Parts: sequence; structure tokens; C-alpha cells
Amino acid sequence: MVSYALGLDYGSDSVRALLVNTATGEEVASSVVNYPRWSQGLYCESAADQFRQHPLDYLESLEQAVAQLWRQAPEGAAEAVVGLSFDTTGSTPVAVDAQGVALALRPEFADNPNAMFVLWKDHTAVKEAAEFTAAAARSEPNYLKYEGGIYSSEWYWSKALHVMRKDSAVRDAVYMWVEHCDWMSAVLTGTTHPSEFRMGRCAAGHKVMWHESWGGYPPNDFFVSVDPMLDGLASRLPTDTFTSDQAVGGLTQEWASKLGLPVGTPVGFSAFDCHMGAVAANVQPGVLTKVMGTSTCDITIAGYEALSETCVRGICGQVDGSVIPGMVGLEAGQSAFGDLYAWFKNLINGPAKSIIAASTALNEAGRAALLQELEDKTLVELSRAASALAPGQSGVTALDWVNGRRTPDADQTVAGAIAGLKMGSGAPEVFRALVEATAFGARAIIERFRAEGVAVDSVVAIGGISKKSDFVMQTCADVWNCPIDVLDSEQSCALGAAIFAAVVGGAHADVASAQRAMGSKVCKTYEPNTKAARVYDQLYTRYQSLGEFVDGGQS
Amino acid sequence: MVSYALGLDYGSDSVRALLVNTATGEEVASSVVNYPRWSQGLYCESAADQFRQHPLDYLESLEQAVAQLWRQAPEGAAEAVVGLSFDTTGSTPVAVDAQGVALALRPEFADNPNAMFVLWKDHTAVKEAAEFTAAAARSEPNYLKYEGGIYSSEWYWSKALHVMRKDSAVRDAVYMWVEHCDWMSAVLTGTTHPSEFRMGRCAAGHKVMWHESWGGYPPNDFFVSVDPMLDGLASRLPTDTFTSDQAVGGLTQEWASKLGLPVGTPVGFSAFDCHMGAVAANVQPGVLTKVMGTSTCDITIAGYEALSETCVRGICGQVDGSVIPGMVGLEAGQSAFGDLYAWFKNLINGPAKSIIAASTALNEAGRAALLQELEDKTLVELSRAASALAPGQSGVTALDWVNGRRTPDADQTVAGAIAGLKMGSGAPEVFRALVEATAFGARAIIERFRAEGVAVDSVVAIGGISKKSDFVMQTCADVWNCPIDVLDSEQSCALGAAIFAAVVGGAHADVASAQRAMGSKVCKTYEPNTKAARVYDQLYTRYQSLGEFVDGGQS
Repeated sequence: MVSYALGLDYGSDSVRALLVNTATGEEVASSVVNYPRWSQGLYCESAADQFRQHPLDYLESLEQAVAQLWRQAPEGAAEAVVGLSFDTTGSTPVAVDAQGVALALRPEFADNPNAMFVLWKDHTAVKEAAEFTAAAARSEPNYLKYEGGIYSSEWYWSKALHVMRKDSAVRDAVYMWVEHCDWMSAVLTGTTHPSEFRMGRCAAGHKVMWHESWGGYPPNDFFVSVDPMLDGLASRLPTDTFTSDQAVGGLTQEWASKLGLPVGTPVGFSAFDCHMGAVAANVQPGVLTKVMGTSTCDITIAGYEALSETCVRGICGQVDGSVIPGMVGLEAGQSAFGDLYAWFKNLINGPAKSIIAASTALNEAGRAALLQELEDKTLVELSRAASALAPGQSGVTALDWVNGRRTPDADQTVAGAIAGLKMGSGAPEVFRALVEATAFGARAIIERFRAEGVAVDSVVAIGGISKKSDFVMQTCADVWNCPIDVLDSEQSCALGAAIFAAVVGGAHADVASAQRAMGSKVCKTYEPNTKAARVYDQLYTRYQSLGEFVDGGQS
Repeated sequence: MVSYALGLDYGSDSVRALLVNTATGEEVASSVVNYPRWSQGLYCESAADQFRQHPLDYLESLEQAVAQLWRQAPEGAAEAVVGLSFDTTGSTPVAVDAQGVALALRPEFADNPNAMFVLWKDHTAVKEAAEFTAAAARSEPNYLKYEGGIYSSEWYWSKALHVMRKDSAVRDAVYMWVEHCDWMSAVLTGTTHPSEFRMGRCAAGHKVMWHESWGGYPPNDFFVSVDPMLDGLASRLPTDTFTSDQAVGGLTQEWASKLGLPVGTPVGFSAFDCHMGAVAANVQPGVLTKVMGTSTCDITIAGYEALSETCVRGICGQVDGSVIPGMVGLEAGQSAFGDLYAWFKNLINGPAKSIIAASTALNEAGRAALLQELEDKTLVELSRAASALAPGQSGVTALDWVNGRRTPDADQTVAGAIAGLKMGSGAPEVFRALVEATAFGARAIIERFRAEGVAVDSVVAIGGISKKSDFVMQTCADVWNCPIDVLDSEQSCALGAAIFAAVVGGAHADVASAQRAMGSKVCKTYEPNTKAARVYDQLYTRYQSLGEFVDGGQS
């Protein structure tokens, strides 16, 4: 009998549904639906870094995506689904009331952005993040010791406190805060009420300060010391957390009907997107899985014993079971990767765009066409010209911190830099230095892992950049001096969710066996060029010097 | 009786003739002629930094320029000319034979670039410059002590040695090397033969290592220690040098006829363009005259007594009488000023130009028009956007050394840098930082002068940038925290030459009186904004930190 697993992947803009054959890993059907309110720009203020998503966006797009899926899937596929699992962005929390209802689903909060999910990239809570970092540094133990010692404005508690300070109506109505990933599983299994609500390990461990060694969350006193407004919030969270190979429960009658699936279909505990993506990418000890897009999310795993006494310095988090049950999941990442290239493209094209927009050399259609060409072709042109240069030829060195530094040693205040500029340095020379800088930034993470006893022998790459740019990928292989396998799945995160769904549905006994059957295959391998790698060893010391200069706070 | 002085200014591309009323300073006629061979790109190899000019270019363009002048000048003006003087670029030397003939004027050398003038910006002699610097450092006294301790590839001896090493025919034929400025005066007075040849103070003191304290040039041994090929060359140069208020002699019959001037019209000793430009700009102690173009040439003067015991560290030179007789002329400068803005314009427009050139959104005429708009409007657009930012607002800091550093402390190996780059940093933010960097680079020169006991209380600006950009000039006034007077003469260097011509022709008793009557008037003054100046005091320390980082050789 053929059986299927359903992976549901909530990205920043859309939800993807992926139906996977549990025995062969074949991706038999796939659909994507954009969030309707989000795509209209509702509830956001880019200039203030405020990004909010309405819970109905998630629910409506899910129904539509699954309905589309069945139109492509083989006859009878829905009845053969053994389980479903979610992955989402994070930290993306929402305020829920004492009944477990997300506030924006109540009529009086329906249009209040503070009653909605606070998307991962919302940076309104910078001040609050610093307060948590300072409070943790004063505590014994330091409750951030497994998260690199620094709390982020992108994370759960910063966002909760910021919204509550800002909005007294939300403050009065909130009972607890729930991560998007946990909320999805709870909604579909009918366990949103605080008395039944249960949480996955991934979000709790990486973003909510949960750790087994202190029996769950930091004590209430800790939170009250940051702000009395937080009194009681942590105590309402369930102390136990669960890995994604376990089921939260079965699909409710209501959602079974909405999704066209059997009642009681097992729903797994959810996790963050990159963590499940790493599972689809066959993450294992010694292999770093790198999701390469606008920024990067870097995941690896290590044996629990090896790390039981160690806190890896300056990474985003180490959480037992956050990726693969029974192993410690380690997360790091770069604040800007593709974003750095896009930044440079926008910087150089800004004046030309103004001039083209006002030029009488073109009619309106011509202007629009040319502006689109500029948008589409600039990075292609830069890559072509930059790849013709030899490593180190231009003498230009750059630092990739234009969006701050996520890891190693998070610091949002640092900035990017470019040095070694000569009259002959043009856009291709600078662009090449920027590409090298993103590779050097990744190397700094790899070297930190190694210095802390976590092996990184090779890299598996997923995400847009890994497929789009031979130039970037070969530069990375040369700078890291290790092979990079690029995976063929276009939707690794959804595939990872399907792998977990297969386990919670009983099609596989454990994650490892599901990975073997269903995991993504390598479509391309980049081997390092030994000669280039030697040059980059030298250039990396220049990158480090520039970094030390900027870290020294002198610019 | 009305009398006129004729100033002749040899720039990089053309010669300008300027006829000035000696009593009123009125510029009654002016003409410009481009060098014919140079404008066709002959004898140059840009990629190899080889720039040569044919002596006939100078002679033919002079005849044409003066002929044009008479067509505009008042009736009978030629007969009322009391004297003429030259300024030229420099160091721009040529090899002459034992008869004093510039080699390229001999048929067998007519097309040999090595037999022509080696233009100031020819950088083929980098290696030779380093050899002279090293030899001087080994000597007692250090023969570069009045030129900042570092010999340049742009200067006389480097170029002479480089050409002689490269071209045995020139080496065998050369008797001595002559600067363009000295050659002009000698040709017009018929004193090119080595037995009659005499040299001006300016070129000799600033570029040829002449100094009174060691009795002229360094001894023959010094030159032989650099290369035996130099044996005897310095000894053939006349030991005495002369300031520009003195006449070399009178116009020959031949040149009187060619130029339409009376035979015997006094011809003054020549000097470099910026030195004479500073005289037109009423240079005086405490005032820095800054010629602001692609690069800058900075001139001031000081009393001889004040500097008799001091060698100002790290500037281009201090020479008694090189600017005003009886005062020490001090020269400094920045390797890139307007060039830095042009560099950034070209950098950002490179990819867009390629895309526009290949685009089907325009026809050929449209493409040409748009490319020209990009060329013409980019800096205007950048200045508009950058001037809307407040000092320090963007957090971006730049270093202006893309073309190396001329002063203080010459070093061609250093490079430019940009720090403090954030996701919000666009082209206007970077451009503003580059403009500030050129102002900071100028401030470093001003502060060096002050630290060495040379007063700089205000600045007088001449040159293209001083008229073209309010934004740049106001930024400079704020960064320097001192007023800047911009002069109205469009041709200060030629005016300076005319002032000296008036003195050698006896229309004025001395340079000071000629300056009072004929010197250029202030057309605009930029006053520093106190608030901005305070911010820039802070930003200047960042500029210095970035400079120390780059000077440390780590990038």
C-alpha cells in the first residue's frame, strides 16, 4: 500500500503544502498560497521595522493550499496520508487569551497589529532584547548560556514585552504568548486551550529560554526583574517540551473536513523551518547544513554527551532534540548573505534609476522595461565580470556586517566595510569582495564551531543562492576549503516536515529511517580549488583584521 | 599709457594665453589651444601609465593661441605688452642634447616617446623613485629633507633614470634633462644651449633636489650611487637658480615674429602652474591657496626666518622663492579630490551602462542620449541627495586614498576604504562620506602645517571644484572650520604668470604691488557652520582611525 506524508511549510510570504511518498521520497504534489492580507502590505510599517501577520492569513492560506494539492495528487491520496507536520518561521509569537484564542481572532482586536503574530524579522523590540541580555548576564545561571549569551530583538520574550508595553489593551487581554509553529499544531488538534496546550522543543529551546537543566523556563523572579509586566507569563507555559517525532494529537473533525483528510490523522510537534530543512538535507554530525538565502541559517548536530558540559560560545543556540531527537541541535547564521548582494545592487542603481525615471530619451513603456532590466540583470552582469577576476587580484577586502552580525558573537551594532579601494576598483571588484565577505563570514562560523569542539567537515547547501549562483558557491567552497553538496529539493523545509509527518504517522520507526527513504538527494557538488583556497587563507586574515577594527568600535 | 602683461599657462591638455591690463588686472583677451598630437592620443599608453608630450605640441599651440589672442585684443595691444611669463605642469622633463635641442626635435627621434616630455602624471618610474628615496635616506644630509623625505615617480630624476634605462638611443644622445617650464623660457629667449641655459627656482627646488644649503644639487657621487648611468648629469645643470620676478632675457627675432610681439620683450623665469596660481590668488602667510580639481595642489608661504631651521615633515617641498621672492614657498596636495567623486560615479554606473548599451528598450540615439545623461547627471543627483543628509547622520566614514596619498607623508601604496555601512546606506550616504573624506584629507594637510609651525588661518580656493559645487565647498568649510574665499578668475594660473610678466616688464616694482593691482578678486566666501564643525571634529577622529588602520598595512 502506498502511503503519503504531508509537510506544511510556513515561510515569510506564503505557505507551501508538499505531499511525499513515504517509501520513495517522491514529491507527488506541491502547492503554494500567498498570505492574502500580508501580500497587500497590511499591518506592517517597513520604515519602523514592524512586520505583523494576521492569524487568518495562516488559516485561510492553509485551506487553499491543501485544496490545491488534492487537485494535483493521485486519486485517493488524501486517504493514504499517514500524518502531517508543520514548520514555520520563528521566532514569530502571538498573544493568546485565557481561552487560548489568538487575540486578533477576537472581533475587538481584528485589526490591531499588536494582537497579531510578530514576524521573525520585526525589529521593534531592540530595547527589550538588550534588557533580557543584561538580566541574563546578572543571573546565575546565565539563562542565555545555551543561546550564545545574547538575546535578540527577533525573539519571543523581547517581542512579548515590547507589544505589552506599547498596547495596554493587548496587555490586559493576554494570557500567554504562543509561537506560530506551536499554534498551528494546536489549532489542528484542538489543543489551543492553555489546559491542553503543548509545545515543541525547537522554539522553546532556541527562543523561549527553555532548558532542562533549570527545569523549564527561568523563574518568575527573573522575568519580573526585567519588567513586572511579565509576572506570571512564563509560569503559564507547559514545562515539558516535545521533539518533532512525536504527535501532538489527531486532526479535529473541523480541520479534517477543511483539509479533506481523515479525522484523527496524526499531527506532529512543529519546529522552525531551517531545522526541518536540515533534516531533509540529511544533517549529521560533521556536516553543516546551510540554508542560503537573503540571510543564512546554519544547522548542525552533535552527540549529547560531547556537548553536555560545553556551551558553544557566540552561536544562536544549542538545544537537545531541536533538530533530530537524541542529538543536540546547533543553530548559527549570517544576518546578510543574498541581502548583501541586493544591497550593493540597490546602492549602485539608485542614481541611475532616478535619471532613467526622469529621462526623455525613453517613453513610459521603455522606462519601465529598462528599469526592470536593471533590476534583473545587474547581479548577473556583476557576477560575470567578478568571476573573471582571480582571488586576491583586486586587493579589495570587504566585511559583510551591513545588517549587523548574527553569529559568531551576535552584535547588531556593527557595520560593513570595504577596504583596499584603488582607482582601478570598479563595481565588479567590489562585488567580488562582497561575495568573498559573505563566504568569510560563513567561515568564521565554521571556525567557531571547530574551536568549540563541534566538527564541520563538509557543508550541505539548500536555499535560493545554492541553486542560483555557481560563482558564489565556488567562492564559498574555495574560502571554506571543503566540499559543498547542493541538494535538489526546491522545498527542503516542507520535505523535512513531511519526513517528520511520516514518523508521527508510523510509516517509519524513527527519523533516521525516514531520512534514508525520503531525504533530498545531492544534485551538484562544488569541490574547493586548492590554489584559490591558499590565497583565501591569506585574504581571510585581512577580513579578520577589518573585523577587529570594526569590533574595536572605531568606525 | 595702457600696458599689458602676457601670461602663458601650459596645462595637461592645452595652452592658454591671457592678456591682462597691468594697472587694473582686467583680463582683456584670452585663448586656448589643445595640443594637436596629444589630443589624438599619440605617444601615450594609459594602461602602462605612460604619458608623453611632443615639443612641437607646445610650440605650435603657442603660436596659434597667441595669434587667436590678437584677434580679440584691443588695437595695438601687442605693442603695449611689457613682458611675458610661463607656467607649466611639472615635473615634466625632456632629454636635450649637447646643443640644447630637445631630442624629439631631431629627425631620428621625432616619433620616439622617450625623446619627448614626460608628463607629470606619467607613473612609469615608480621603481626609480624608490631608489632615490632610499639613496637620500642613506645620505647625510638627506637630500630630500626639504621635499618631505620621499621622492616621487612623478619627478625629474626618477623619470630621467627610467627613460635612460629603457632607451639606449636616448641615453647615448642626452646631455641633460630640462623641465618644461625652463625649456619654454629658454626657447623664446634663445638660451637653450647648455652654455647659456638658466633655470627657475620653482622646478629646481621642488623636483630636482636643488637647495642652497648644499650648494645646488647633490654631488655627482650621490647620483652615481643610484646608477652610474647618471654620472655627470647633475654637474651639467647651472648651479644658480632664479625666482620668477626676474627675466631670463628678451624675445628672439624668430619668436617675436611668430608671436607678433616686439623683439626683446622680457621673458620671465617660469614656474609650475599652481605656484603661479597661488600668486594670482594673493597667497600670503597664514592663507592656504588650494587648487581644487581632480587632485589638489596646496600652496602657502612663510617667512624665511621662521622656517630656516625647520623641515616641514611629510609635505611635497619647501623652497625659498618658489612662489614669492623672499618667502619660503610650501607645496602640498591630495592625490584624489574630484577624481574620487568621478571614481565613485564610474563605479556605480558601470553595470547600468553595460545594461543600457545592450538594451532593446531604446534605439541607438536614445541609448547615446541616456548614457550621456548618466555621465552628466549622476554627480548632480548624488550631490542633491547627499546634501539633504546631516553631518554624521549616516554613520558612514570613508578614506580618500584611492589614488594613494600625496601628503601628508606620501605613500602611493595605501588605498581607500569605506566603513560604517548599513542596510540603509545608499549611494548618497556613501557619496557624502567620500566628499567628507576629501575634506578630511585636506584637513590632515592643514593640521600638519600647523603642527610644524606654519600658520593656516583661512583658505583661498581656485580650480574647477571651487566653482562647481556648493555642497563640496560648504562641507570643506565645516570640516576645516575656517572660511574659504573662492576667486572669480577662471584662469588663475595664467593670471599669476601675467602678474610675474608685469614685474619682469617693469610695470610694477615688485610682485606684491603687481598682486594688489592685478590679483584675482573674491567672488564667494563659505563660512563654517559651527554646529556642523563640532560634529566633524568627532567624525575626523574616525577618519584618522580608519587611516591608521590602513597605514598599519592590514588591508
